[in-house]
Amino acid sequence: MLPEILDLSSIRDAYAKGMTPLDLVEEVIARCNASDDPAIFITRAPDDMLRSAAKELMARAPEANSLPLWGIPFAVKDNIDVAGLPTTAACPAYEYSPEADATLIARLKAAGALVVGKTNLDQFATGLNGTRSPYGAPRCVFDKAYVSGGSSSGSAIAMASGLVAFSLGTDTAGSGRVPAAFNNLVGIKPTPGLVPNTGVIPACRSVDVVTVFAATVGDGIVVRRIMEGYDAADPFSAEAVPVGLPASGLRIGVLDGAEREFYGNKAYEALYDAAIERAKSLGATIVPFDYAPFREAAELLYNGPWVAERLAAVKDFIATNADDFDPTVRSIIEGAKAYDAVAAFEGRYKLEALRQKAKVEWSKVDVLMLPTSPTTYSVEEMLADPIARNGHFGRYTNFANLFGYAGIAIPAGFDPAGHLPSGVTLIGPGFSDGALGPFADAMHRALAAGMGKDKTAAIPEASRVKPMDDGTISVVVVGAHLTGMPLNHELTGPGGTLVKSCRTAGDYRLFVLPNTTPPKPGLIREPGFDGKGLEVEVWKLPPAGFGRFVANIPAPLGIGKLTLDDGSQVSGFLCEAHAVSGAREITELGGWRAYIKELRG
Amino acid sequence: MLPEILDLSSIRDAYAKGMTPLDLVEEVIARCNASDDPAIFITRAPDDMLRSAAKELMARAPEANSLPLWGIPFAVKDNIDVAGLPTTAACPAYEYSPEADATLIARLKAAGALVVGKTNLDQFATGLNGTRSPYGAPRCVFDKAYVSGGSSSGSAIAMASGLVAFSLGTDTAGSGRVPAAFNNLVGIKPTPGLVPNTGVIPACRSVDVVTVFAATVGDGIVVRRIMEGYDAADPFSAEAVPVGLPASGLRIGVLDGAEREFYGNKAYEALYDAAIERAKSLGATIVPFDYAPFREAAELLYNGPWVAERLAAVKDFIATNADDFDPTVRSIIEGAKAYDAVAAFEGRYKLEALRQKAKVEWSKVDVLMLPTSPTTYSVEEMLADPIARNGHFGRYTNFANLFGYAGIAIPAGFDPAGHLPSGVTLIGPGFSDGALGPFADAMHRALAAGMGKDKTAAIPEASRVKPMDDGTISVVVVGAHLTGMPLNHELTGPGGTLVKSCRTAGDYRLFVLPNTTPPKPGLIREPGFDGKGLEVEVWKLPPAGFGRFVANIPAPLGIGKLTLDDGSQVSGFLCEAHAVSGAREITELGGWRAYIKELRG
Repeated sequence: MLPEILDLSSIRDAYAKGMTPLDLVEEVIARCNASDDPAIFITRAPDDMLRSAAKELMARAPEANSLPLWGIPFAVKDNIDVAGLPTTAACPAYEYSPEADATLIARLKAAGALVVGKTNLDQFATGLNGTRSPYGAPRCVFDKAYVSGGSSSGSAIAMASGLVAFSLGTDTAGSGRVPAAFNNLVGIKPTPGLVPNTGVIPACRSVDVVTVFAATVGDGIVVRRIMEGYDAADPFSAEAVPVGLPASGLRIGVLDGAEREFYGNKAYEALYDAAIERAKSLGATIVPFDYAPFREAAELLYNGPWVAERLAAVKDFIATNADDFDPTVRSIIEGAKAYDAVAAFEGRYKLEALRQKAKVEWSKVDVLMLPTSPTTYSVEEMLADPIARNGHFGRYTNFANLFGYAGIAIPAGFDPAGHLPSGVTLIGPGFSDGALGPFADAMHRALAAGMGKDKTAAIPEASRVKPMDDGTISVVVVGAHLTGMPLNHELTGPGGTLVKSCRTAGDYRLFVLPNTTPPKPGLIREPGFDGKGLEVEVWKLPPAGFGRFVANIPAPLGIGKLTLDDGSQVSGFLCEAHAVSGAREITELGGWRAYIKELRG
Repeated sequence: MLPEILDLSSIRDAYAKGMTPLDLVEEVIARCNASDDPAIFITRAPDDMLRSAAKELMARAPEANSLPLWGIPFAVKDNIDVAGLPTTAACPAYEYSPEADATLIARLKAAGALVVGKTNLDQFATGLNGTRSPYGAPRCVFDKAYVSGGSSSGSAIAMASGLVAFSLGTDTAGSGRVPAAFNNLVGIKPTPGLVPNTGVIPACRSVDVVTVFAATVGDGIVVRRIMEGYDAADPFSAEAVPVGLPASGLRIGVLDGAEREFYGNKAYEALYDAAIERAKSLGATIVPFDYAPFREAAELLYNGPWVAERLAAVKDFIATNADDFDPTVRSIIEGAKAYDAVAAFEGRYKLEALRQKAKVEWSKVDVLMLPTSPTTYSVEEMLADPIARNGHFGRYTNFANLFGYAGIAIPAGFDPAGHLPSGVTLIGPGFSDGALGPFADAMHRALAAGMGKDKTAAIPEASRVKPMDDGTISVVVVGAHLTGMPLNHELTGPGGTLVKSCRTAGDYRLFVLPNTTPPKPGLIREPGFDGKGLEVEVWKLPPAGFGRFVANIPAPLGIGKLTLDDGSQVSGFLCEAHAVSGAREITELGGWRAYIKELRG
């Protein structure tokens, strides 16, 4: 009844057809028991705990799909607290039993989601590859010789194997994105501050963010929206105002010249180029940009004072339990002792200077599209050179949280042999999380490379991310505001753009208003009048710009609703009737341009 | 010809009447030569340099007052670069000759201002009292036994003594505010990031800001506006969007209970209470708030890792020249060595947690009004306990830049003996710099305690800061949007507030629109119609809310301009004329409320 890869809409369909959360829980237990990767979970929810949760949900909200995540099973990276299950951060000696759910877990449970278990990770979320755990290394779902990616390794493999319908990671360097790329998943990386970190073990507390692995962009966004929202208990939680992006014609920044580095992985390079072509085919404008300031910021995360945040997070524990650490993780964290407070502030100065350089690049683009990881490695290769090769994975991810950006990692297809997948990540300005969705989803659908382990699965239509209302307001202009006319700057000044030229419905009459400077027409609707419609332009403006535009319109003009020749009603210029009494009618000219032409002789 | 205390409008008047910048320069030279405080300047501009600058200005812009600061003399704290004059930061061994003007100095010069000299400061801007300089301690202009305040000591005394028309300080802890309080001056402290620090020696680079001492709030704002603006060369420079404040009925947060600390200075406490009364008399709502989170943040600046920024600023120099430091300054800066990078990040976590607590207080108030300094000390008292007593001065200032707020310090009058002055500071959210101006100016004028050294000078009318347009848009509603009517929520939802109830001009007629739900009227202007006007309400909305409101209005209604009974024209509801043909006219009822009452029978 359920597909191999679980997604929200398939489960909702099954629920609508009579399956119950208790049925689903049994299916999930069976799938987990049948899993051939023993390293996915650190702690599975005991079967009876999962059954109880399903029963409680059915008692609390009996109607199928009556909550946004009604009966949706999910996995939680084991650095996020779930009451009743131990938290380890993949360090057995660190284990504790949290009394409360992390804030975001409480929100997901309230929305009806069911915790299947706590997943493996690179210890203390320090790594991008998935091999740094005493609980074993989860493996790429397409080839067990290859790394899963990390640090959110178990969560990615649980999702890509069809054990859960979404899973949670955390992302400091790229831990919510890199494993998505290696396992044909979507990885939603919110802007830091959007999802509260209360109840999450910090890696670098000032830049950590909880992420979602999902089968589709739409699923991931649904989950992110439930997790997000201000939490005063988290010092870095933000009361965010969503940032928009153009609804069409996105300018997408792509790597160029010497900044294109794939560490010899030609297949990944070709998949990146194919993603660029796909973006073009979806109407994007491709803009090569200079990645250098972003790369330099990325390098600061491990080769700079931010590693001291990792030490701050575990300083009491490492003082007594250094031998309980994974050796690589320990060496990274202890490296932080080399940094003094002066170095910490100097790191910040460098980052802010790079932010100013990055600003120049942002002036050319709306969104960046980068390889999620430039290459991948086998577990053997990774263990042979664990710091440098891990560093390769972070080349195009490490800057994003330092700069406070939003990101969505999407699949980019498989190498020519159909062996291993790659991914690209769309990066937008901070709090453009929602605005990134439609294009990310369109890219994912255009790829048609399945979901997770199932390379042929069709992406469910029900999860399609609708083009966002970009928040602008359309306004029909008739006279002096038309393109090239004297007041057109009142539209272009506040960021207005031309949507189209068209005609009004047939029952409008046009008059020349006496004594107006510059000359202006008055448009009057007369039901029953049988004209040919008048030439107008539709512009769109941001709400504040539109508001000020309206406020500046002098009598006898105003903004009401005009009916266009396609029957649509759009805000546009009207005129008080008294002002046209005795005025010259120019309806027969077909529009204001013709009158102005006539005036000029 | 010129008053004792120089201000922009008096100088402009003098220029308009024929004085030249060259005349002014001679006057300034004479005043500087006659000054009885030898510790004001570290380097005066040589007389001929000043004369040349005046001549160059007259050649470049011959017409009087043809630039915003045409021929305005100013003093520069000696941690800000002025090409042609040495920079010392009050440490002789540190002296260097800058090749270029600081960015903000270049902007002021371009606007016509003339540099009179480089002023004394607490060494490396480390201090709030003015005694920490090998160039001597400038003294309070009202009693030479008392400290000037610092670290911008020389600039404050130059301004308060009438040597210049404005002067520049820098402010990390409160150095642009405390000396203003002690010398009856206005101190404009911009939001960090607004004025570029390129060419300014850092104290704590992440929070430093250049400030203005001026005779009036209006003068200070003129200068700030010229200095401000994005500069990519400064890592902390911001492209700021101004933040508004209510144009009337400001909610002003004031100290309460145990957080009222004046270190035994009853006179200062009484002057603070008098300022509160003055704010009330100007229409403000006084709101006691909890200063604790602000105080805890303030304590972080010196008793926390931010001192490492002071070390970062001079680390190479102090390594070789520790003995060249003022002993107190040296001990503070060397104290930074105790902080490691972990402590630096932990300091940030604490600050962000306090910011979340401060947010709760901000929900109750628009602006904070605090004593600029809770007390003052004689030079002798200060030298006897230089760290603790300096700390007292910063009790109500040190948080402001850490939190990124805007501030304006204004005089608060003299103790009962008329001996020493105090001040209060208005603190607003980041980038509310412009919005703070009108109330700060009104408070200063209501005090009537002169300017600087001249306790009886009248504040020039020409520098009055006009009430800011608060950016909202007024809209006249006629029917279903009136208070208590079914669509009123469309105004209150987006933050609309009722301005007044009134009547339209007499030539409007009101009709009941057929088939509208809820019932709606149509208002039609008919020039020549002699009615009594119709009852309406004026509401105001933020521009975006107004824009969306207009976009939601269905045909046949729209927003044009209505004429009210006072003759003013305000945006408001109009109706397409065709919609009222055959409709019932209710003009004689006087308004929509009467009709609804009649309906309800």
